[in-house]
Amino acid sequence: MTAAIALAGRGRGRTAPNPNVGCIIVRDGIVIGRGWTQPGGRPHAEAHAMAEAGDIAGATLHVTLEPCAHASPRGPACAETIAAAKPARVAIAVQDPDPRTNGQGIARLRAAGIAVTTGVEEAAARASMAGFLTRQAKGRPHVTLKLAVSLDGRIALPDGSSRWITGPAARAHAHLERARHEMILVGRGTLEADRPRLDVRLPGLEARSPRRAVFGHGAAPEGWTALRDLSDLATLDGVDHLFVEGGAGTAAAFLEADLVDRLLLYTAPIVVGAGQSAIGDIGLADLAHAHDRWRLTDTRTLGSDRLAIYERV
Amino acid sequence: MTAAIALAGRGRGRTAPNPNVGCIIVRDGIVIGRGWTQPGGRPHAEAHAMAEAGDIAGATLHVTLEPCAHASPRGPACAETIAAAKPARVAIAVQDPDPRTNGQGIARLRAAGIAVTTGVEEAAARASMAGFLTRQAKGRPHVTLKLAVSLDGRIALPDGSSRWITGPAARAHAHLERARHEMILVGRGTLEADRPRLDVRLPGLEARSPRRAVFGHGAAPEGWTALRDLSDLATLDGVDHLFVEGGAGTAAAFLEADLVDRLLLYTAPIVVGAGQSAIGDIGLADLAHAHDRWRLTDTRTLGSDRLAIYERV
Repeated sequence: MTAAIALAGRGRGRTAPNPNVGCIIVRDGIVIGRGWTQPGGRPHAEAHAMAEAGDIAGATLHVTLEPCAHASPRGPACAETIAAAKPARVAIAVQDPDPRTNGQGIARLRAAGIAVTTGVEEAAARASMAGFLTRQAKGRPHVTLKLAVSLDGRIALPDGSSRWITGPAARAHAHLERARHEMILVGRGTLEADRPRLDVRLPGLEARSPRRAVFGHGAAPEGWTALRDLSDLATLDGVDHLFVEGGAGTAAAFLEADLVDRLLLYTAPIVVGAGQSAIGDIGLADLAHAHDRWRLTDTRTLGSDRLAIYERV
Repeated sequence: MTAAIALAGRGRGRTAPNPNVGCIIVRDGIVIGRGWTQPGGRPHAEAHAMAEAGDIAGATLHVTLEPCAHASPRGPACAETIAAAKPARVAIAVQDPDPRTNGQGIARLRAAGIAVTTGVEEAAARASMAGFLTRQAKGRPHVTLKLAVSLDGRIALPDGSSRWITGPAARAHAHLERARHEMILVGRGTLEADRPRLDVRLPGLEARSPRRAVFGHGAAPEGWTALRDLSDLATLDGVDHLFVEGGAGTAAAFLEADLVDRLLLYTAPIVVGAGQSAIGDIGLADLAHAHDRWRLTDTRTLGSDRLAIYERV
């Protein structure tokens, strides 16, 4: 299942509104098929893996999300296709919350005499499909806030100059993160001060540059989406992963509304002193209220910088 | 030598102006003596270890600093004592920069027919005696700056409330660090706003509370030292390790004058937003000048907080 979860990551940021799923088919200890949801959402991971495997009779299929029980104009229901192919066993990480499937895919497989195991590596699989699951549960995209700060929490000098706080390895990592989101958003102030390109400048990934959005009043540049209010988040079609890149006012607005699910904190080994802070006023009245909301889930070294990833508790 | 360096740590903050040294004596693969510089600076580590070992003829003595070549009213020269005891070999991490010894201890041992190896685990040993070595090289104490911040670099809410940013494990660690310094310093503003006790509140270490100092103009409370100017640093007798605990103005003054050797950054997994920053204006005109000054040397998890230790490059 760990390998299937890794495959699921390949579709992240390219499958909305469909989930990015991964699938591995194994027979006699040999991997005979590997699949992941293709760009645009079809084929599904199971169909992709089965096309590679051919005959899967007697095999075990490992899939990160319950196979769908609903046919659509774009393809048949995976649960039906799998049932017809007669694998011995299907291991599933997460039950699909979509009401058109939610347990019915599992029931269909079991009715066909296939052994079904659920909840396998569920936490890791949920993390890999955070966009789809957040959309299903909350009706809005999964939101990642990115901050690149000095060790004293500054993002720029008092005059606004911010090139560079972090080094090339951290910036490349942030570009990779961009490619895993359907949309990048900055505030009006950042747009006007920096005119950022917000594209993915990594060899081979140029085509993965997400759609761009600006938060705040006023017109959006051509090709950009305008997000005038946080309630507009629910209306973003085809965006299950939103990457918020600042500035401090926009970060504060998202945090104050409790709309940040994941926080990427890149810290450079520099002291800036007087300067601009990463996050504006979030209306915190008591330090006690700030605790138990975030947990550190990963850290890594990127050149001389450090990345810490926090997730909502 | 690694064990000798660990022993050296026991005297840290209690031996100034003498170095905190560690010594291990081994014969036939068995440790027969362990010593470290005792509080106040005497006995020296070698004398302490030799008293435990008794006869050390033919043994190997591992010591973090070159044995002293100068007798004093408080005790004989270690190089003489060791030479008389006829160990087969002496391994030394760091040559003593004190001009009364600087190589003469090694020469005395060699003249007695003892095999001497130098530079063993030198970097780690230098770090363990940073206070003594900084005093020898720069004529001032080794300075550690402690910061306890939210993940957005805040040390307090706008109204100054700062209890608590970090949790009990991080605060206990900071108290342990206090015990490893001869003096703790805060700025005038912190003194007046918080009236901090600055003592070591750890079971068994209450007696290790360092002397206290206040930086800035005005009178010092009874029992405190007043540091009116950074040049006063050179005059602090018996202080080889100074622990600077804030606030932002004091931190900035030390950083701007390039007087910080080590930076302890405790980061809590909380977002504060608007609030007080850890470090005031250090006169940085260009971000490029901020780079290549600090390197991360250690990180650890303390409860839900993280400690990152940076040292001057």
